[in-house]
Amino acid sequence: AEIVVLPGDGIGPEVTAAAVEVLHAVASAYGHRFNFHEHLIGGAAIDTTGEALPQSTLDACRTADAVLLGAVGGPRWSDPKAAVRPEQGLLALRKALALYANLRPVKPHPAALGASPIKPHLLNGVDLVVVRELTGGIYFGRKQRASDSASDLCEYSVGEVERVVRRAGQLARQRRGHLTSVDKANVLETSRLWREVATRVVADEFPDVTLEHQLVDSMAMHLLSRPREYDVIVTENMFGDILTDEASMLAGSMGLLPSASLGDGKAGLYEPIHGSAPDIAGRGIANPVAAILSAAMLLRHSLGLDDEADCVEQAVSQALDAGAFTADIQGGGAAIGTRAATAAVLENLQ
Amino acid sequence: AEIVVLPGDGIGPEVTAAAVEVLHAVASAYGHRFNFHEHLIGGAAIDTTGEALPQSTLDACRTADAVLLGAVGGPRWSDPKAAVRPEQGLLALRKALALYANLRPVKPHPAALGASPIKPHLLNGVDLVVVRELTGGIYFGRKQRASDSASDLCEYSVGEVERVVRRAGQLARQRRGHLTSVDKANVLETSRLWREVATRVVADEFPDVTLEHQLVDSMAMHLLSRPREYDVIVTENMFGDILTDEASMLAGSMGLLPSASLGDGKAGLYEPIHGSAPDIAGRGIANPVAAILSAAMLLRHSLGLDDEADCVEQAVSQALDAGAFTADIQGGGAAIGTRAATAAVLENLQ
Ligand SMILES: CC(C)[C@H](C(=O)O)[C@@H](O)C(=O)O
Ligand SMILES: CC(C)[C@H](C(=O)O)[C@@H](O)C(=O)O
Repeated sequence: AEIVVLPGDGIGPEVTAAAVEVLHAVASAYGHRFNFHEHLIGGAAIDTTGEALPQSTLDACRTADAVLLGAVGGPRWSDPKAAVRPEQGLLALRKALALYANLRPVKPHPAALGASPIKPHLLNGVDLVVVRELTGGIYFGRKQRASDSASDLCEYSVGEVERVVRRAGQLARQRRGHLTSVDKANVLETSRLWREVATRVVADEFPDVTLEHQLVDSMAMHLLSRPREYDVIVTENMFGDILTDEASMLAGSMGLLPSASLGDGKAGLYEPIHGSAPDIAGRGIANPVAAILSAAMLLRHSLGLDDEADCVEQAVSQALDAGAFTADIQGGGAAIGTRAATAAVLENLQ
Repeated sequence: AEIVVLPGDGIGPEVTAAAVEVLHAVASAYGHRFNFHEHLIGGAAIDTTGEALPQSTLDACRTADAVLLGAVGGPRWSDPKAAVRPEQGLLALRKALALYANLRPVKPHPAALGASPIKPHLLNGVDLVVVRELTGGIYFGRKQRASDSASDLCEYSVGEVERVVRRAGQLARQRRGHLTSVDKANVLETSRLWREVATRVVADEFPDVTLEHQLVDSMAMHLLSRPREYDVIVTENMFGDILTDEASMLAGSMGLLPSASLGDGKAGLYEPIHGSAPDIAGRGIANPVAAILSAAMLLRHSLGLDDEADCVEQAVSQALDAGAFTADIQGGGAAIGTRAATAAVLENLQ
């Protein structure tokens, strides 16, 4: 399999290196051949080429079986007046590959509950996946800037809502059969469209799935007060961005959470939900787990290697059980670094 | 003083009745004269007049010293295809009175920490106010609906951002001098405008206030992991809607949280941040505290009666200390109803 690796900025290179190491180990354990092709994106690409998503990177991603990304962005490139921003590279890549469904599973690990701000008794048994629409909404609508005003257009077509709800319905069917659609239908026209389409798609195509609608503000509460009740949550781009960062607190740290961005083909983009964390970049202390679990999602969703994916997830779980904690999840006491955390996963592999 | 009361829907009438009782008690204790004028809004207004905000209601609000509102909305009126929705009444009122700054204080009460999903040690000392922009953004931009698509326009002018940031700066100056401005400047044009204007207004007019910028997704995490670090948080309409519902979980229940919506004049609109809670309406079990604390904010911000406001807030605090808990904050055991909870506050008044 041909895997494009986009280390990006900040801690991106450190955590993708860890994930690639794990993929190498999987390849040799199971007798696969993975070829890795590293390309530039984000700030690193801007520095070298002036563009956040060079054509050569996009071309490589288009022909790859899967793409593994670290993170993009950082204060060096975040002058609001800058002509090119690292984030544009990531957004353009999602759009160009039509990766409309961003899966963000949240399953707090028992050993890491101490790191969560949420009371542990609420977290037992939490196992949810947010399916965030990733190529539409206010992220991609027309933006305008005048001297004394600015605007962003939030737009959704029926087709855009259908396909992401369908993907979420399929996932719900494979899981506990419960789907929660999140919108702001009491205020937004796009949300009213969203609600109508979600209702129709589930009624027509997923009669075995139960659908519940939640307003985004209520959801921001219920995610904390009764997280166990959710199975699959589907929502539009901006709400998904906010709710998944919030949901990461259930797991204790963003450093633990992977994501898969999928389109209609097999190829997908896999990345931690955390950012480039410029404050800790280069110090060897970043948590590699989110990137390693993203690699597991890559094995599962793009390469169809379910056993191998299970094996990586189990190794991570065992490493956490054994207390292999980086600083983000270690309360007091000594935390280990990125290399040691990666080694702990490798040790438990198979 | 002339006070318009808009009970609205669901539990609205129950909780505004409690707040009015408390205001009556304040009036007689301090020798004030408050005249209450009840008017229709929301679903109740739709049922009677066909409109969510009848002209007579708006006229009354325009000439009042302050408006006390319960809540609007409910399943009866929430058919997505309905021509008029209760929420439109509230949105139209906010807009017509130019109440651009919505203050939502969050200060968890020690006695109610058990009700919060957040670990208690993170909550000690939390005392923040969200200043939510209330008359702009995606709530009020042009909405369009075609057969196969929909759109909502998010717009902000420099003046709209300036005035709300200024209000937040004034508040920060009276408090701990720390202001956090929340946006999504790495994606949205309106957020880049927001960030520029916030930076300039604080630099020019509030050199004594420290300003920090946060992306909305990060804020959704930090609000949970380090709530103590925030003093005043200012943000646009939609982000404020989501973040304040999330922040309500710090206090344990929305039933405890008041809000004040202010414009340039003294008149303001005061309402609990909770909704109409149709599931518990009419059962006499709603928590009246949010409405009572909204009345305290009314005394402070519209009537300039700071001592009286302090007195109400203290009475609420003492009632909670004494364990006067409605069902939303009572873990196990017997909860009291709306009347008993109101009586507990009245008992502690002065
Ligand atoms: C970096 C940024 C553009 C991105 C987003 O908002 O989608 C990030 O926050 C994410 O969630 O992947
Ligand atoms: C009822 C609804 C329109 C309203 C809003 O979104 O502003 C409510 O959620 C609030 O926060 O006051």
